[in-house]
Amino acid sequence: MTLNSMPLGARDTRDAIAAGRLTAVQVTEHRLAQIAEAEPWLRAFVQVDADGARAQARALDAGAGRGLLHGVPLGVKDIFAVDGLAWTAGSPIWKDRIAGFDAPAVALARRAGAVVLGKTVTTEFASYKASRTRNPTATDRSPGGSSSGSAAAVAAGLVPLALGAQTSGSIVRPASFCGEVGFKTSFDTIDSFGVTALARRLDTVGLFACNVPDIGLGIEALSGLALPLATTAQAPCPIGIFRSVAWPEAEPTLLPAWESFEAALASAADTRDALPPGLVAALDAVPALHARLMVWESAEALAHELNTAPDAMSPGLHGQIEEGLTVTPSQRHADRMDLQRLRSRALTELDPAAVWVTPAACGSAPRFEDGTGNPAFNRTWSLLGLPCCAVPLLADEVSAPIGVQVVGAPGNDAGVLAVADWQMHHFAR
Amino acid sequence: MTLNSMPLGARDTRDAIAAGRLTAVQVTEHRLAQIAEAEPWLRAFVQVDADGARAQARALDAGAGRGLLHGVPLGVKDIFAVDGLAWTAGSPIWKDRIAGFDAPAVALARRAGAVVLGKTVTTEFASYKASRTRNPTATDRSPGGSSSGSAAAVAAGLVPLALGAQTSGSIVRPASFCGEVGFKTSFDTIDSFGVTALARRLDTVGLFACNVPDIGLGIEALSGLALPLATTAQAPCPIGIFRSVAWPEAEPTLLPAWESFEAALASAADTRDALPPGLVAALDAVPALHARLMVWESAEALAHELNTAPDAMSPGLHGQIEEGLTVTPSQRHADRMDLQRLRSRALTELDPAAVWVTPAACGSAPRFEDGTGNPAFNRTWSLLGLPCCAVPLLADEVSAPIGVQVVGAPGNDAGVLAVADWQMHHFAR
Repeated sequence: MTLNSMPLGARDTRDAIAAGRLTAVQVTEHRLAQIAEAEPWLRAFVQVDADGARAQARALDAGAGRGLLHGVPLGVKDIFAVDGLAWTAGSPIWKDRIAGFDAPAVALARRAGAVVLGKTVTTEFASYKASRTRNPTATDRSPGGSSSGSAAAVAAGLVPLALGAQTSGSIVRPASFCGEVGFKTSFDTIDSFGVTALARRLDTVGLFACNVPDIGLGIEALSGLALPLATTAQAPCPIGIFRSVAWPEAEPTLLPAWESFEAALASAADTRDALPPGLVAALDAVPALHARLMVWESAEALAHELNTAPDAMSPGLHGQIEEGLTVTPSQRHADRMDLQRLRSRALTELDPAAVWVTPAACGSAPRFEDGTGNPAFNRTWSLLGLPCCAVPLLADEVSAPIGVQVVGAPGNDAGVLAVADWQMHHFAR
Repeated sequence: MTLNSMPLGARDTRDAIAAGRLTAVQVTEHRLAQIAEAEPWLRAFVQVDADGARAQARALDAGAGRGLLHGVPLGVKDIFAVDGLAWTAGSPIWKDRIAGFDAPAVALARRAGAVVLGKTVTTEFASYKASRTRNPTATDRSPGGSSSGSAAAVAAGLVPLALGAQTSGSIVRPASFCGEVGFKTSFDTIDSFGVTALARRLDTVGLFACNVPDIGLGIEALSGLALPLATTAQAPCPIGIFRSVAWPEAEPTLLPAWESFEAALASAADTRDALPPGLVAALDAVPALHARLMVWESAEALAHELNTAPDAMSPGLHGQIEEGLTVTPSQRHADRMDLQRLRSRALTELDPAAVWVTPAACGSAPRFEDGTGNPAFNRTWSLLGLPCCAVPLLADEVSAPIGVQVVGAPGNDAGVLAVADWQMHHFAR
């Protein structure tokens, strides 16, 4: 097997190793070489662990195990603790910190045979301050955030799978901007211990990959959630279309692409309404609630950093936290209860099999110097704790990618991925 | 002020400092001396940070700040990260680990002026393997677990306030055994980042103290949940009586004490039913669900330890994790959904002001060599994520303490503490 025929995906990599066509060491060396070539312009990694990855690969080649991710190279967003590697969370406060353990999500990936290639760039504490990472589809554009490095590394073909996390739109938005698949699980499906917190009621672990079955494989390894995907010719279920309360924030580049997609979907699938009108009306309150939860939960989550190094925070983040400190105790209590009531309504009022589509972002990726983009289309689903998957189906007028976001009822991760996979095949550009 | 008149409680300590009757340094030195005297037999601390506490106290005396916990000595269960101190989580795997940051709960306490005196003993990973800590009310008895050291340190008068966490009954049970107040908040009221996880859907942070207003003060500092307590002569609300599905596990020592308490409560308060019959029927499923969540969530939470040092786990914990690894993906998915549905039912079917009482433990503390006791009366409320408070009101035939557990609807932490405070005054032994 030559380098040019090196498999790109996670399943393909694993299968090639299982069939004896490749070794884990060969895969690792190839990926390390690709990273070395791309990093000068892409800047997706905080740290590449070449020695550690080689040692892991050698152990896999020598061992008898055949985990779900045997030999699959993995990028890990730098808010996850990885034993012996940098754990900066994108902040100068932690520039010299080395983690002393693996976060459970990382440990579970490793147990399944994944080879950790390194830590990928995150925005400051997974918040809004843009990082140095470039968008591999157009280096003058932002890769989005906060999982900037994981999104860019997968889109550039440097790793077939990468860990991310989402509080507002930190997985779905960068996946949309970079033209790949990004999946945020139902809230708390994957253990988030050892993942630097921003807002604990919202932070959710997920994955980036270049196809949907690879996402399913990774989620199964990390959560024990079996997501058997059998690609079907017909849509696997009715698919709602929901422009959401964020629609007024759609950019001009999105409008024609989305309207064409809606028409194409309506002719290919049963597009009945997925969301009951009463629940839709309740969603009007979500943007303000999400914004308040973000500011006061981040003031708690980053209490140590605020105590010890407030001047090492960016002005934007510091301002957000200062705003959080002014939210009154009674308002915080009301926010907690409102969040629970909304999640309870999603659980009881949605058909458990419901799946719908909505844009993954307001448009294509912004210019690099204009920040990480607007998560308006993502906040609602992050707050409700619903599974959502960005699927690279649309484009703006200069062919920059825009994602379709597939969302489902609480716990319907399997339904979301089934629809995402069907769409990848049916609408592939 | 002489040592004998040193205030015992958190509010009293803070008020004495505010009034200029004491300095934070004097309080700290007194507590450190008490700890040095008690530790040889009590063994409540993993590490006492005398130098760090003195430095904190000097800074408080020199500064202008007057936080809610200004000068209040704090014990911290050794599953919480405290910057520069041991972070063993009760396991030999982490015997040499030093935390490099404060968990948010610790950072928030520090910001409010609390003085961290040291790390208190936990059972292994907050699970069942008994620790070396003794029960201060009777040294031949267990203090309960898993927050053994925090419970013992408060009951022995070494600290007025201590942090704990509960997955099954790790706050309410030891508080019951040691004769003090122990409060588990509504699920996720206090940030649990940096707190070693055992089962993330259940783990909840809480506090130990010798009176209810001190608990309220601490919770306000840690969560921004204002819990103004005005002690009332009359019961502040109707109080349900609910023996729960655990009643068959009540020990002979509990029965007469509980029956007398029920009668006394009925003559002092409106004891109408608090739980709708439909919800009560659904609770039958809780013990099995809780047990399954514990085993498979701990297998995820401790994935790194299982990967790297399985032989350094106790046989009991290792067995639990091995059992967790056998739970099928479909069963895990069903468990996740059942948990969400039960919490959603508690939110929608309970009166938001509902409060009821149930035993805090199956009986008084077991003998030291017989383990940390049975959390049968605690599991249901931990699983539902409800606020619960142990109140030291009952005793067995040799006067060993047994707690009354006050439980409330989701988010009704204030109602639970109001009833607990009223009961402390009305029924004080």
